[in-house]
Amino acid sequence: MIVVYDVEVSRVDRVRKLLRRYLNWVQNSVFEGEITVSRLTALKKELQELLKENDSVYIYTVKFPKAVKRETVGAERGGTEEFL
Amino acid sequence: MIVVYDVEVSRVDRVRKLLRRYLNWVQNSVFEGEITVSRLTALKKELQELLKENDSVYIYTVKFPKAVKRETVGAERGGTEEFL
Repeated sequence: MIVVYDVEVSRVDRVRKLLRRYLNWVQNSVFEGEITVSRLTALKKELQELLKENDSVYIYTVKFPKAVKRETVGAERGGTEEFL
Repeated sequence: MIVVYDVEVSRVDRVRKLLRRYLNWVQNSVFEGEITVSRLTALKKELQELLKENDSVYIYTVKFPKAVKRETVGAERGGTEEFL
């Protein structure tokens, strides 16, 4: 799973703290990781309560890890462990 | 394909302009789209020439479109056409 967010600056810290409880931070506004369906439901609920009108979060659900490969151009930021 | 970037603010415009020539802007520092292997090679070359030391671009290559699904929490930003 890949999650990217674009939220109002006053909410960035809270969104980042929330996402950190579920996933791994890997780049500025990007998280990766693998979570269960029930935890994804819980994450979405918490996000909906936190986000305001113009905030945007995209959740890319990956059917199986091997279907997605990550390449880095330039610096590696977060964890470099295997994608999922 | 999903591309996310985290680059020095003075280079954001140029990186965004470059990525727009290959992919679709969908959120703050996120692009999506489907490109050929040769265009991906060309894109990576242009990125390497443009990026400086601490700049970071992640390229997520998706083996086949159906393997990834995008869900939005909050606002939809860029194109809403089918993921790939």
